[in-house]
Amino acid sequence: MALKGVLRPGYIQIRVTDIDAATRHYVDRVGLHQVSREPDGRVYLRAFDEFDRHSVVLRPADMPGMDYVGFKVASDADLDNFAQRIEASGTRPEEISADEQPGLGRRVSFVVPTGHRIELFAEMALSDSGPMVQNPELWRQEPHGMRVTRFDHCNLHGPNVDATVAFFTEVLDFSLTEVAQTPDGHIAAGFLSCSNKAHDIAFIRRDEPGKFHHMAFSLESWHEVGQAADIIARYDIPLDIGPTRHGITRGQTIYFFDPSGNRNEVFSGGFIYYPDNPKRVWSVDKIGKAVFYYERELNPRFMSVVT
Amino acid sequence: MALKGVLRPGYIQIRVTDIDAATRHYVDRVGLHQVSREPDGRVYLRAFDEFDRHSVVLRPADMPGMDYVGFKVASDADLDNFAQRIEASGTRPEEISADEQPGLGRRVSFVVPTGHRIELFAEMALSDSGPMVQNPELWRQEPHGMRVTRFDHCNLHGPNVDATVAFFTEVLDFSLTEVAQTPDGHIAAGFLSCSNKAHDIAFIRRDEPGKFHHMAFSLESWHEVGQAADIIARYDIPLDIGPTRHGITRGQTIYFFDPSGNRNEVFSGGFIYYPDNPKRVWSVDKIGKAVFYYERELNPRFMSVVT
Amino acid sequence: MALKGVLRPGYIQIRVTDIDAATRHYVDRVGLHQVSREPDGRVYLRAFDEFDRHSVVLRPADMPGMDYVGFKVASDADLDNFAQRIEASGTRPEEISADEQPGLGRRVSFVVPTGHRIELFAEMALSDSGPMVQNPELWRQEPHGMRVTRFDHCNLHGPNVDATVAFFTEVLDFSLTEVAQTPDGHIAAGFLSCSNKAHDIAFIRRDEPGKFHHMAFSLESWHEVGQAADIIARYDIPLDIGPTRHGITRGQTIYFFDPSGNRNEVFSGGFIYYPDNPKRVWSVDKIGKAVFYYERELNPRFMSVVT
Amino acid sequence: MALKGVLRPGYIQIRVTDIDAATRHYVDRVGLHQVSREPDGRVYLRAFDEFDRHSVVLRPADMPGMDYVGFKVASDADLDNFAQRIEASGTRPEEISADEQPGLGRRVSFVVPTGHRIELFAEMALSDSGPMVQNPELWRQEPHGMRVTRFDHCNLHGPNVDATVAFFTEVLDFSLTEVAQTPDGHIAAGFLSCSNKAHDIAFIRRDEPGKFHHMAFSLESWHEVGQAADIIARYDIPLDIGPTRHGITRGQTIYFFDPSGNRNEVFSGGFIYYPDNPKRVWSVDKIGKAVFYYERELNPRFMSVVT
Repeated sequence: MALKGVLRPGYIQIRVTDIDAATRHYVDRVGLHQVSREPDGRVYLRAFDEFDRHSVVLRPADMPGMDYVGFKVASDADLDNFAQRIEASGTRPEEISADEQPGLGRRVSFVVPTGHRIELFAEMALSDSGPMVQNPELWRQEPHGMRVTRFDHCNLHGPNVDATVAFFTEVLDFSLTEVAQTPDGHIAAGFLSCSNKAHDIAFIRRDEPGKFHHMAFSLESWHEVGQAADIIARYDIPLDIGPTRHGITRGQTIYFFDPSGNRNEVFSGGFIYYPDNPKRVWSVDKIGKAVFYYERELNPRFMSVVT
Repeated sequence: MALKGVLRPGYIQIRVTDIDAATRHYVDRVGLHQVSREPDGRVYLRAFDEFDRHSVVLRPADMPGMDYVGFKVASDADLDNFAQRIEASGTRPEEISADEQPGLGRRVSFVVPTGHRIELFAEMALSDSGPMVQNPELWRQEPHGMRVTRFDHCNLHGPNVDATVAFFTEVLDFSLTEVAQTPDGHIAAGFLSCSNKAHDIAFIRRDEPGKFHHMAFSLESWHEVGQAADIIARYDIPLDIGPTRHGITRGQTIYFFDPSGNRNEVFSGGFIYYPDNPKRVWSVDKIGKAVFYYERELNPRFMSVVT
Repeated sequence: MALKGVLRPGYIQIRVTDIDAATRHYVDRVGLHQVSREPDGRVYLRAFDEFDRHSVVLRPADMPGMDYVGFKVASDADLDNFAQRIEASGTRPEEISADEQPGLGRRVSFVVPTGHRIELFAEMALSDSGPMVQNPELWRQEPHGMRVTRFDHCNLHGPNVDATVAFFTEVLDFSLTEVAQTPDGHIAAGFLSCSNKAHDIAFIRRDEPGKFHHMAFSLESWHEVGQAADIIARYDIPLDIGPTRHGITRGQTIYFFDPSGNRNEVFSGGFIYYPDNPKRVWSVDKIGKAVFYYERELNPRFMSVVT
Repeated sequence: MALKGVLRPGYIQIRVTDIDAATRHYVDRVGLHQVSREPDGRVYLRAFDEFDRHSVVLRPADMPGMDYVGFKVASDADLDNFAQRIEASGTRPEEISADEQPGLGRRVSFVVPTGHRIELFAEMALSDSGPMVQNPELWRQEPHGMRVTRFDHCNLHGPNVDATVAFFTEVLDFSLTEVAQTPDGHIAAGFLSCSNKAHDIAFIRRDEPGKFHHMAFSLESWHEVGQAADIIARYDIPLDIGPTRHGITRGQTIYFFDPSGNRNEVFSGGFIYYPDNPKRVWSVDKIGKAVFYYERELNPRFMSVVT
């Protein structure tokens, strides 16, 4: 593959109502590392297997939710190119200068039709404690907590999913890998990939714009999904659902809430995607199995609670 | 990522000295499905999670080894483009017309400096029994044998590894993800990716050209590496080494031989690669740990036996 | 340990309303082997890792449920001894002569206060295809379906649980390993072991006597609980709940129904028990976590549906 | 089963040449907890899932090896009874009074024909931080290091294995579950169980008496055998062999050395044993497969290095 364009979700900034409780949750339980706590109150975190300085940003706020998610592009030229394509598509790109987050270069920021702020960036400082590269050991220190390896994707709810999916595929060169479709052909849920992953971001139809359903971290295996479940139960972390498997993406998964009410997912597996693969299509009458392959029905909380 | 250029290893044709024994091995033990047996004697196989008609071709022959490995490119235009770049690089591309293998489109074929024949193609018929795409179940039928999900990569030995790596990175747009390097800066072992995988092909330095070290199939988890080991032991399949882990790529792995003496690998895991990741570098004095992370020393058979 | 007395649950006879559908379920999906189908219509089954001729008996009937469960004792003398102790305890033991089931020796049969028929036996023919014992391979043939290794226990509902638990501990020398207790000190759920397992049989309080909640088969690991879940979903087997973990016993588990409506469990893990271990005690207000450690609440279907 | 007689291996005392290095190894890497360090220099350790105060005792010494292994019996009366049977068998039992180890009751100590000191005891104080018993969580604190659950068994080398096996089966009521046998019918390797485990102690023929091959700790699954392998490699702990599987017992295993040169095993699985199971028998010409089911040949280090 020509390694150009959008590479991956690089960072996500979420709002938390108790920064200390949130930091303990993400560090002690989820297994992230704290990178820094800045004077403006934001806490920066990374997973042990990520090269970049940080991937998760916690911002103290009155209400939970997501501020934005940023995708890394392969080069500064790509960043300029995407800014032009975004503008040409009728969406206004905003330039945010470097170092608004420590270690992060300049960003192009914009709002998609579902009401979510998406960003692109080309440069982030490397972490001092990222994966080893000279005669590299498997990891520097033993993974802890849920042993998450990286920030993997987020799932966002809002109106105009068709338009947002079109934006991601036409302007940002993502692939629509899998879709739940209404009888009249609209996208109820769209899963978009910029990589070999089954998805790097997902949009689900909901009337209110800009809603945050969950952010997900990857695990190595179903065994570790079970260990995450043990940690969730042992420490009375509010469980949403799981351990289970998704029909869509096939991921093996468990969902829970951080102390501010933001939903987290940790998961493993999911099909490997190639751009010549047929698109997978679910009809909405099979949405139960699509979402929870084992239970074959939706959990009301899973559908109703967003931040 | 712009989903262009080389996508993945799509097929591999290997020579087997007893076609029936080989077919039983790959179908009953490794867990592939037989697609067809053609009048010229070739047997076509695919793994259960592949969309394409076939991925492994067994050719009856007097001696084991690999005839060629073919990479799928995203479009016919890419195929023409690569043919021009190959020619411009001083390597002679050969055109093979469609249907030399059933279901396969036209191919561009060429020999790299290590002496191996590599091919590119843009079209292959989809399998009738590939992964489901309408309200898709996890699989059509339960996986069997070692439960391999796909043909993943091959590992080839020959001279001029530096030149071959340069060809793959400069002409075919692969990334050199990880390398074992001699003190004078030459590549003893180069791991090349065209995707998010830690590697899609590897070249190892050896005096004789065109040698085949192994072809690899992917498994879901370390648990399945253990089940593969059970099958290998139960049916007296010749084991090379494993279960173990590689330092290079971090894959969890086991190696064994088919009835003709071709080496097979089944493995799980391996780091996820992005083109902005630093290259991992091993010094040759750490080659034991690089190859077998647990044993920390090379197995003489692993280094000496090639076909 | 002095290897005397009751050794293990050896067979269970259940009623099924469609013997062919039931046989397909237990053979193709659960992964048992059919041993024989007898002229009286009963089908005999065993798991691949059991030495005895059979462990599960399906009897064609109008209504689902359990006829009886039989425990193997170490010797014929033990059988006589237990018959005397049972009689001395005020329960009438009935003698059933050998070969009422093929390969099975004489049995002592009796009804405990919850209304369930329990049996003891000392002799059963060994299977021709049981585990190998001369230079034994891991298994003869690859396990199939859910890969269950053995019939492990059953869970029975009825009144007079305190009296039944007393019978099992005082007359049959079982240990009460774990208990859910009402505020007034009665046993709402009692888990009884005659081995190092966390339980070999369980009794749960319910008004109707003689009810069958489930029979359970053991799996090797949580990985295989996940594979069982895949099979359940793929073949539309009615799921009850899981994959999850029990607080009681700590087993990792999934529940589903056979085509007649009898509940099955497949599970792995559970603590290892020794008779000097303190008894684990749950208060009924924690019954949610006790039963489903992850969900921390009871599933109404799990509590209400019995056969 | 009548829960009488010998229950399990309860403690093992080994000699270490550097007590601090040994403590760090067993606590930080193997995952035991330090219970106390006594004025005489001994360090007491336990695994997280054990009820008793301690199970492993490290004694500072000039040479590595095992001082003794102690088995817990069900009652003080059993202790007296076994003392008499031992004496009647011609072996001299020695009484060691309570509290020679903190929390440990009186012991009966004796030397078996292979030259190893074996002990029996009926009382040990319960740990303050043992498994929970009131509405018990899965564990108090997350397991760490290799996450071993308990001290499981030891493997001892010496002469007169036939006589020692006879002693264990006839005097201590163990079962000989599996054996490697010479053509003339002698026991080259005998595996003895006092429980449902495939073995609780093993004796292997060797000319020198009183040799210590390894002590073993149990893990939950093959997944954790892999994680143990990662820890061994990451921290340069000397590996002996593995991850692999035994033919004998079927355990999935890895062997390594503590800093004093004592061999450790961590393993999962192994068949469940019942006293009515046929004895498994290996001929010595299959000893390779018997010991290492995957490699099918012995590792010279595994056979030659004992302490």
